[in-house]
Amino acid sequence: MHMSVSVAVSGASGYAGGEVLRLLSSHPGVEVGAVTAFSSAGDRLGSHQPHLRSLADREILPTSAATLAGHDVVVLALPHGASAAVAAELGEGVLVLDCAADHRLADPAAWEAFYGTPHAGTWPYGLPELIRADGSRQRDELVGAHRVAVPGCNVTAVTLGIQPGVARGVVEAADLVAVLAVGYSGAGRATRPNLLAAEGMGSAVPYAVAGAHRHIPEIEQNLRAVGAEAVGLSFTPTLVPMSRGILATTTARLVPGTDPAAVRAAWAEAYADEPFVELLPEGQWPSTAATVGANTALVQVAVDERAGRVVTVCALDNLVKGTAGAAVQSMNLALGLPETLGLTIEGVAP
Amino acid sequence: MHMSVSVAVSGASGYAGGEVLRLLSSHPGVEVGAVTAFSSAGDRLGSHQPHLRSLADREILPTSAATLAGHDVVVLALPHGASAAVAAELGEGVLVLDCAADHRLADPAAWEAFYGTPHAGTWPYGLPELIRADGSRQRDELVGAHRVAVPGCNVTAVTLGIQPGVARGVVEAADLVAVLAVGYSGAGRATRPNLLAAEGMGSAVPYAVAGAHRHIPEIEQNLRAVGAEAVGLSFTPTLVPMSRGILATTTARLVPGTDPAAVRAAWAEAYADEPFVELLPEGQWPSTAATVGANTALVQVAVDERAGRVVTVCALDNLVKGTAGAAVQSMNLALGLPETLGLTIEGVAP
Amino acid sequence: MHMSVSVAVSGASGYAGGEVLRLLSSHPGVEVGAVTAFSSAGDRLGSHQPHLRSLADREILPTSAATLAGHDVVVLALPHGASAAVAAELGEGVLVLDCAADHRLADPAAWEAFYGTPHAGTWPYGLPELIRADGSRQRDELVGAHRVAVPGCNVTAVTLGIQPGVARGVVEAADLVAVLAVGYSGAGRATRPNLLAAEGMGSAVPYAVAGAHRHIPEIEQNLRAVGAEAVGLSFTPTLVPMSRGILATTTARLVPGTDPAAVRAAWAEAYADEPFVELLPEGQWPSTAATVGANTALVQVAVDERAGRVVTVCALDNLVKGTAGAAVQSMNLALGLPETLGLTIEGVAP
Amino acid sequence: MHMSVSVAVSGASGYAGGEVLRLLSSHPGVEVGAVTAFSSAGDRLGSHQPHLRSLADREILPTSAATLAGHDVVVLALPHGASAAVAAELGEGVLVLDCAADHRLADPAAWEAFYGTPHAGTWPYGLPELIRADGSRQRDELVGAHRVAVPGCNVTAVTLGIQPGVARGVVEAADLVAVLAVGYSGAGRATRPNLLAAEGMGSAVPYAVAGAHRHIPEIEQNLRAVGAEAVGLSFTPTLVPMSRGILATTTARLVPGTDPAAVRAAWAEAYADEPFVELLPEGQWPSTAATVGANTALVQVAVDERAGRVVTVCALDNLVKGTAGAAVQSMNLALGLPETLGLTIEGVAP
Repeated sequence: MHMSVSVAVSGASGYAGGEVLRLLSSHPGVEVGAVTAFSSAGDRLGSHQPHLRSLADREILPTSAATLAGHDVVVLALPHGASAAVAAELGEGVLVLDCAADHRLADPAAWEAFYGTPHAGTWPYGLPELIRADGSRQRDELVGAHRVAVPGCNVTAVTLGIQPGVARGVVEAADLVAVLAVGYSGAGRATRPNLLAAEGMGSAVPYAVAGAHRHIPEIEQNLRAVGAEAVGLSFTPTLVPMSRGILATTTARLVPGTDPAAVRAAWAEAYADEPFVELLPEGQWPSTAATVGANTALVQVAVDERAGRVVTVCALDNLVKGTAGAAVQSMNLALGLPETLGLTIEGVAP
Repeated sequence: MHMSVSVAVSGASGYAGGEVLRLLSSHPGVEVGAVTAFSSAGDRLGSHQPHLRSLADREILPTSAATLAGHDVVVLALPHGASAAVAAELGEGVLVLDCAADHRLADPAAWEAFYGTPHAGTWPYGLPELIRADGSRQRDELVGAHRVAVPGCNVTAVTLGIQPGVARGVVEAADLVAVLAVGYSGAGRATRPNLLAAEGMGSAVPYAVAGAHRHIPEIEQNLRAVGAEAVGLSFTPTLVPMSRGILATTTARLVPGTDPAAVRAAWAEAYADEPFVELLPEGQWPSTAATVGANTALVQVAVDERAGRVVTVCALDNLVKGTAGAAVQSMNLALGLPETLGLTIEGVAP
Repeated sequence: MHMSVSVAVSGASGYAGGEVLRLLSSHPGVEVGAVTAFSSAGDRLGSHQPHLRSLADREILPTSAATLAGHDVVVLALPHGASAAVAAELGEGVLVLDCAADHRLADPAAWEAFYGTPHAGTWPYGLPELIRADGSRQRDELVGAHRVAVPGCNVTAVTLGIQPGVARGVVEAADLVAVLAVGYSGAGRATRPNLLAAEGMGSAVPYAVAGAHRHIPEIEQNLRAVGAEAVGLSFTPTLVPMSRGILATTTARLVPGTDPAAVRAAWAEAYADEPFVELLPEGQWPSTAATVGANTALVQVAVDERAGRVVTVCALDNLVKGTAGAAVQSMNLALGLPETLGLTIEGVAP
Repeated sequence: MHMSVSVAVSGASGYAGGEVLRLLSSHPGVEVGAVTAFSSAGDRLGSHQPHLRSLADREILPTSAATLAGHDVVVLALPHGASAAVAAELGEGVLVLDCAADHRLADPAAWEAFYGTPHAGTWPYGLPELIRADGSRQRDELVGAHRVAVPGCNVTAVTLGIQPGVARGVVEAADLVAVLAVGYSGAGRATRPNLLAAEGMGSAVPYAVAGAHRHIPEIEQNLRAVGAEAVGLSFTPTLVPMSRGILATTTARLVPGTDPAAVRAAWAEAYADEPFVELLPEGQWPSTAATVGANTALVQVAVDERAGRVVTVCALDNLVKGTAGAAVQSMNLALGLPETLGLTIEGVAP
């Protein structure tokens, strides 16, 4: 007998919510239940998400305990700060996946320093490929979970890029530098002048520079989980003219005396069995285009012997492996479904 | 018992061939066989198509009768003029789908006038939604076919946009005007200076203006099949800064005395049962972004009473519904599989 | 003795106002006076227009009769409906150039039908190249003018594209079709979701289709001034992924019996002496990129004998020849300066 | 008496040569002489550079000693390796500016390691703002020069971004990390598949990673000239979807004990008197859009106290301040003209 899982999606008129719905609409193990939002409640979903044809005639319901009740799974794609209250009204048996930051950080002080509000508690972290200090992977914690904190998109790109070197101790985590090229959907559907098409096209511009970005403590937390004693991170995201995609360039000093071959081996072994992370053949560097629409992270690494640094580049689709795909992958694990169900690894390119 | 169909793809390092492979890689009824090409033979497929992860380690074979032999289906994504010779060497029982123009036109004179080479004969035309003069659809001809001529991408966009009005006789086909915004993948992977990123970004530029484009006789042929007595078409494609997508704006004079409601009814009825063509709710106009990666054509129509013209806009992904998706859809019909198998209707947006 | 002309610019934080300031900053005959705006008053100009380095430290003043007083010239780059009230408070001797639509249309009924507010009167029309029925040009009316209505950007592109054929009677103005690819700055700095970079990149989408666009009566008015008895116009603008630029494709039926050579002659003669409009050599089609930053309109025309239509394409920068450059050119004429002063004809490409 | 200087431009059909011609066409002190090229010789310039209207009808001459003879100035915009031979045939009294790399590096070993050909000698380096160890600027060496090596575009962006900190000793030059977002015109007009519009749009991709880029030794040479004892540089350029622009993010460890205010002071003082380099107000980060078409470098700097690093971002137009503008600025200095003549500081934005 086939029992389909019902999934409600809150924040359905935004980019993250829309992407969750896109993935769920072709997921063979689930059925899309309520689609909810705040300001667009009452509208036809198709007027906000014209690309979701199979769901276009759904009415967007108001986000509330009542509309979300009765589902096996609830995906929250809400602004930071809104998830905890909603989750509190859902039963403990319901699987809740939170695409916002609210439940990612374990350290209340780090949370409060970067977000300025009271800490809402920590949920199992939805990055299955995260290498834990004991060599196991984070996916183990997700099996059977009822609450999942979906990682930040930039966090995933930097973590997947550099963690093999940290895990193997071939790079120094104390002085990492990450610079990211980020597409505009990463900023969400907020209507701010600097996010207008006329301003973004043909331009590259950094934001949240010099320690200001909220993804910093989350990356540091990940790399400590991997085994780093001290993590130092210079983190600079730059908006570039694309809708989707993150290209994260991360460099770290090579631990002196390390054989460059050991670097490649560290990365190769870390991802040999990961369905969604691929170390490219030597010399081939990842492009974001190759990951569009896919739950894929493409990774490359090289040793710059002249500079004494390892350089790693990770490309992914911020809305898929960076958000909605990570949610679906975590949902699969939590529900005991095959981890890759409903997710594609082929990008839509060119 | 499940018998999978084996499909070879020729022209695997180009954009059309790559898209065919992307769709086939997740098609539940087929298995990808040989991937072949001319100049890139011997290379790893992943070095040309890094987004096709599941096929990345395949070796590209040379295109020849030998490498293509032994498959149930062969998809040809070759330059114009190369298909006939290849097809002649394949058995009659093999299903051959030709993404080039060689077998689209029934009229040798039209072929020779626009292509300048001898006519290679006509194959069943792979536009299942084409309305035929008797009210049936072109899909009937594709069931069980062994040869299919996949339509030109611009042709599909203009035909799907305007054919309901022609079929119902509410517009005059004798003086159509079509202007298209076309993404750069439509020009293929040819390395010409005007196709460079530096030139294309931030620019819009027409090409093949004033009756020069080879898709003109194909559109005319389609609309005559729909039932038009005389077809006149001013056709202007313009390259705009996007990788994928065609937005075809087509206008025709309203037949005098026609009730505007009859226009909407014509379009609504034409596409009521079509899985891949959607008439949007009144007032909502299609964007190409909503169709990226999907085998979807979004259509809207309105009467401009001031100008006495009907305006219809059709958006589609030139590589999917415009080429590779049409090939797969036709393949499904030819093989007796469900027409929609392996094709998605949800676009990857934003 | 050199007397510099002082120019105030209202609407200085918007795209049109910014472009007026960019041109004035290097204009050898003027001095930039007050820069004013509504909501951004009090801000440093550089925080809204970081590209205007020479004016970056100017304070944006509130828009009022007081701040605009005492200048020789006032350029208004305000939303529609705001100009008349501001202009009324400025002396009659002051040259006022209005970049909004308020004073463009001579027919109060047309104004009210498309704008829905009372007609504010008509000012001399700032399209110097407009051919008048007696063969003279519109620039004659601008010499010494004290009020100028700057044309709409799309209007200029369509008018310059097709007017030679109308003036010479070689095309039929009764059934024109114009489809435009338009960059996002044409929509202004309004923060609407459909103008976000994430939505616009990689997409083409029409707007104001089927007779709804406010530029229609203005084009019709122009072509009647050129000499057309009846003007019919199907007009479809489409947003494409670029910041600047309009590519207007306009087609008209060729008057039966017209020699194609007469078509080319009409265009060649119309623009032989125009500094800012260039008919390209036969076979070379204009791109918007070639006009970026320049007060240039590039035009091409061809006869499609198969379709019985003339096709003309006009490319220009919507913010320069489409708005701010037209304002400066008109200002030069009004002040008796050389018409080309402070304007460049070289685009910034690629 | 006004004596105009005649300037020949070689490589006139490429992007760098075209940009030199764009700037010269409005330069009040020069006259454009021969425009030459190799493969496009005999063509009308307008067929390759349609944006250069004032020069469109010029015939492209073959590049040779004969066509370049008789000019006061020759600008070479040729591929690497071609300049030395051409320059050798020009008189010593002629001012020759070389936009290629041939004469930039003083160290033959560095040249040979990165370029693989014999060293052609060193010419005065055309980065007037370069701070020399004695506190003077590089412009002093350019006054009256007859040979100028125009810097590499990425080099200028990184050097201008970080040199104030190196000069003042507030950052450690031994472990610099630079990641750049670069527009496609930086790759020149070569027709390689990875430079096609279809591939570049919507994608970010690194190239020449891990110590492979030829601009590395040039940056190191500059920073040693500024006063650094040891320079270490991890350098990663990434192509992003824009035609023009470089956004260089460079980080360096803060020298322990340095007051953050001293960092800002270093940058502010370095550029207080530079016409073409601007330190933005605190908190405002540069965008490449703000520099398009201008000879402007916008710089910002901040201390990331958490990471112990200084972050500096420099935005410029690779074709202007990165190449052609630097050539014109150096030419002005060499000829004794005002340094800013014929150059604009206002970008074409949005």
